[in-house]
Amino acid sequence: MQAIGYYNGTMGPLDTLQVPASDRALYFGDGCYEAVMVVNGIPFAFDLHLDRFYSSLSLLSIAPPMDRAQLRRTLLRVVAATEAREVLLYWQCSRGAAPRNHVFPDASVAPTLLITAQPKPIEPPRRDLKLLTTEDVRFSLCHIKTLNLLPNVLAAERAKCHGCDEAVLVRDGFVTEGSHTNIHVLSGGTLYTHPLDHHILPGVTRKRLLALCEELGIPVSEQAFPADRLSSCDAILVTSSSLHVAIADTLNGKRISGPEYPLAVRLAERYFAAFLEETDRGL
Amino acid sequence: MQAIGYYNGTMGPLDTLQVPASDRALYFGDGCYEAVMVVNGIPFAFDLHLDRFYSSLSLLSIAPPMDRAQLRRTLLRVVAATEAREVLLYWQCSRGAAPRNHVFPDASVAPTLLITAQPKPIEPPRRDLKLLTTEDVRFSLCHIKTLNLLPNVLAAERAKCHGCDEAVLVRDGFVTEGSHTNIHVLSGGTLYTHPLDHHILPGVTRKRLLALCEELGIPVSEQAFPADRLSSCDAILVTSSSLHVAIADTLNGKRISGPEYPLAVRLAERYFAAFLEETDRGL
Repeated sequence: MQAIGYYNGTMGPLDTLQVPASDRALYFGDGCYEAVMVVNGIPFAFDLHLDRFYSSLSLLSIAPPMDRAQLRRTLLRVVAATEAREVLLYWQCSRGAAPRNHVFPDASVAPTLLITAQPKPIEPPRRDLKLLTTEDVRFSLCHIKTLNLLPNVLAAERAKCHGCDEAVLVRDGFVTEGSHTNIHVLSGGTLYTHPLDHHILPGVTRKRLLALCEELGIPVSEQAFPADRLSSCDAILVTSSSLHVAIADTLNGKRISGPEYPLAVRLAERYFAAFLEETDRGL
Repeated sequence: MQAIGYYNGTMGPLDTLQVPASDRALYFGDGCYEAVMVVNGIPFAFDLHLDRFYSSLSLLSIAPPMDRAQLRRTLLRVVAATEAREVLLYWQCSRGAAPRNHVFPDASVAPTLLITAQPKPIEPPRRDLKLLTTEDVRFSLCHIKTLNLLPNVLAAERAKCHGCDEAVLVRDGFVTEGSHTNIHVLSGGTLYTHPLDHHILPGVTRKRLLALCEELGIPVSEQAFPADRLSSCDAILVTSSSLHVAIADTLNGKRISGPEYPLAVRLAERYFAAFLEETDRGL
């Protein structure tokens, strides 16, 4: 079992993989990415991730590095090379490798494709996440999964420095999302989640969580939640492809647990059960 | 004469330079950069660029890749390797090369240093720039010269698609800066320029232009200029290290030239004369 890297057709151990210094990801973060958990060679919610990837490319006017069927095969080939059963699969595409210039390179420059696959054991959803609120200083392109992640890096590090696991980003008094997660709030029996606009990423786990709520008859309000009401909510749910549906233990050091907390646990467990089932993992 | 690249101690032709796929610039744009024009081995306003570089590093909590004297020597060594008289020198530093993770890598991971030096003839300041206003969708870290430049790339490309040379970014109705320049407006004998806050980069050329205005007795107002009053101003000045002080010909297709336009020409010429003098270039 080993971490594998791929770049424009060349595959090998990830720790020796190199890329040209002219890749526009390096100068501008001019590209987009995806990450998905894979079990037994089955990437969870693969089609939703591929949908979003091609959508990000389109929103950035980047030509696809290959068609969907070919990309799917290439990604699975890199996963297979790890010889691991449980893998974190990541891929990113930049607008190309060309001399540094803000404007797009000419059409003869092909987009680049970087893939990494790393063995990573599947873990049941956490219920012990410590969260820290911090100001959302990001741009207005958060609906695209771009490589411009410096504010996310700074927010994640700030959370870590306060002994926390994740930052809850707050813009103009309302919760947007986490530094690399979506954030949802259970309050009075309703799940509140930021509407899909240019301030949050359309999370794959978010989408499936909302579908699960509908299935279970839990009301959902796609409405930004006021940060100053977080401390009195029933539960905060934190979602991402690697965390699944996790639950906060504390926010800014204060325990978050209201009467509806068991509903959050039920959602997290049901979500994870579906993950295990769809990836043939077993318990 | 050739373009030279340098990465963490390795130097060679730029077009064959490679970097590890784990450089955090590639995944997060987690770093900062500088660019400066060099003539006869003399980088123009070198100390101001070095000041800003170390300031960017500090604001991002990135350890300097080397001390100032050593960096200065290293940069000049890369310039010398081009064997060119007129060179665009660029360098960037990322937080390090390490497995992808939003939080900072541990302290044992060294920052990376990438340098490029490319022959580029010095050109006198342009007076024919075509500008296009476009919405400023960037984050609130614009005072740091970071590698998160995707909105800048999109704005520059949008301008190009409209037959223009540069975008004028507008936030909440006021001009901030260009996609890779600072923007200044001459109106009623006063030079208006956005104040130094988190919406613009503290440009080196901007700083020296303001000093020149003071020297010439031209009033400066560090106040954001309303975009809807641009079309009736006397002149729009566009500054950067490679453009020096350039002047707009048109904005959104409309010629910009009021009674004080000759003052803009005088500023541009005086600025360029100082550039030539300080770099021993001659006319």
